[in-house]
Amino acid sequence: MDDVRSYDDGIVGYFIEDLSVGMSASFQKTVTEADIVLFAGVSGDTNPVHINEEYARKTFFKGRIAHGMLGAAYISTVLGTRMPGPGAVYVSQNLRFRAPVRAGDTVTARVTVAEIILEKRRALMNTMVTVGETVVIEGDATVSLPTRGD
Amino acid sequence: MDDVRSYDDGIVGYFIEDLSVGMSASFQKTVTEADIVLFAGVSGDTNPVHINEEYARKTFFKGRIAHGMLGAAYISTVLGTRMPGPGAVYVSQNLRFRAPVRAGDTVTARVTVAEIILEKRRALMNTMVTVGETVVIEGDATVSLPTRGD
Amino acid sequence: MDDVRSYDDGIVGYFIEDLSVGMSASFQKTVTEADIVLFAGVSGDTNPVHINEEYARKTFFKGRIAHGMLGAAYISTVLGTRMPGPGAVYVSQNLRFRAPVRAGDTVTARVTVAEIILEKRRALMNTMVTVGETVVIEGDATVSLPTRGD
Amino acid sequence: MDDVRSYDDGIVGYFIEDLSVGMSASFQKTVTEADIVLFAGVSGDTNPVHINEEYARKTFFKGRIAHGMLGAAYISTVLGTRMPGPGAVYVSQNLRFRAPVRAGDTVTARVTVAEIILEKRRALMNTMVTVGETVVIEGDATVSLPTRGD
Repeated sequence: MDDVRSYDDGIVGYFIEDLSVGMSASFQKTVTEADIVLFAGVSGDTNPVHINEEYARKTFFKGRIAHGMLGAAYISTVLGTRMPGPGAVYVSQNLRFRAPVRAGDTVTARVTVAEIILEKRRALMNTMVTVGETVVIEGDATVSLPTRGD
Repeated sequence: MDDVRSYDDGIVGYFIEDLSVGMSASFQKTVTEADIVLFAGVSGDTNPVHINEEYARKTFFKGRIAHGMLGAAYISTVLGTRMPGPGAVYVSQNLRFRAPVRAGDTVTARVTVAEIILEKRRALMNTMVTVGETVVIEGDATVSLPTRGD
Repeated sequence: MDDVRSYDDGIVGYFIEDLSVGMSASFQKTVTEADIVLFAGVSGDTNPVHINEEYARKTFFKGRIAHGMLGAAYISTVLGTRMPGPGAVYVSQNLRFRAPVRAGDTVTARVTVAEIILEKRRALMNTMVTVGETVVIEGDATVSLPTRGD
Repeated sequence: MDDVRSYDDGIVGYFIEDLSVGMSASFQKTVTEADIVLFAGVSGDTNPVHINEEYARKTFFKGRIAHGMLGAAYISTVLGTRMPGPGAVYVSQNLRFRAPVRAGDTVTARVTVAEIILEKRRALMNTMVTVGETVVIEGDATVSLPTRGD
């Protein structure tokens, strides 16, 4: 009951004892032009492939694409707000960019528990970002989690 | 001369033939509370460690911290706007988060050419994000570059 | 004359003696995807009906809708910048959400004086938000106003 | 299990059968200057009490305050993302503004189930926004919920 109540407040996530291999959580968002503009603003990444349609049309991508790190950020959203949620610490993230994301695409970031290293209080996660059937980012993450014994 | 002029337009980056091991470029930005608010909006990551000072004060971090992926985004800013710049394609990025970034910190992202694989038109980059003397993110990236022969 | 000049500076609003029942003022804005992204960031409200087109399409709303409180905020814009304007204090607001607002809609918020309670220095306002002929929010507000005798 | 998995994806909230009187959920956020700037931008509410420190210092509030509707928006964040969560429809909200919120304040919005009207598929909620011990907004909301029988 306590955990449920705390989870409703969004400030207690999973403890390492709560995870098991194969558990999964996801976050979904439609990428908008505004997201790309704002990401350019906060990151300073004004690469014309993101903000210049005339330039981007002549590239391999045939039009503006979202920043790769915007797609990667949704993985962090799952880890920080869904599973494990607050209290987990991001240790590492490996990213392989497979395909572009464009304004209008609805992106799904999915995190799946791959391995639990109880004595180190760490979990290895498979992290995958898709648009429909297309994998746009593959990778894996390591997170450090609180234990119920703390 | 042409390349220099184009580079000044910000829409032609380095060709793979222009890179050599040890070359380096960087981007620097002061992280503000506004960046964190906007990053929460575009990513959907409302983990309280980023947006709730009362919660964050009780954590290991002793106060709100920026999203780790915001720090990582500055690496992408170097790759996309400084070196190699437009035309390069982000293939992969590995990130190890070492220390938090807070509003007010001025962050430096530095990219250094580690290896050039001419036949695959790829370059391996060391990528490091620092705040003063503190390394906040370590990692490496692979980028695919255009060649002068294209 | 003085009041008119001050009002042009945007920093003196109506005194309670200046209001009469039936007076009305409005504010109009086109809602954009950017407004919704930013509202998600400042409010933390990442309900998928606002940010996930694939999810929203399957709901009763058949697509993403703006946050209801964004529509309500335009009422506050009228009260704070048009009538009564600066100096008025927001005492209460009742809101009945009648229909959704979507990106691209031009919203009109209209405030009409319904009753003046001079001895309490308060005015009751009818507050209505529309998109074209459709009422999207109905309600009423109470504001406290300065008097010329202050 | 299905519901838990769905909840981890953040796209299934409570059904009306899941609620009981007294259940409660909350959301907490530290209000920043950036939130006020962005709220002014999306709402158009440029009342100087929010954006002009010289003006605001001379008012009853002795300095800039956040938009009242920003505080109210956090109630909507609880309703839309915590309890009942996605699938609930906002029917009405009554707000009584009791005290100002300033940049730097950490605001808690708490929603408590007050009454369940099963045949109408509606729940009445007490909604309260606080900063520390101070109540800044009081009120109540009505939401319409999906049923397990749908």
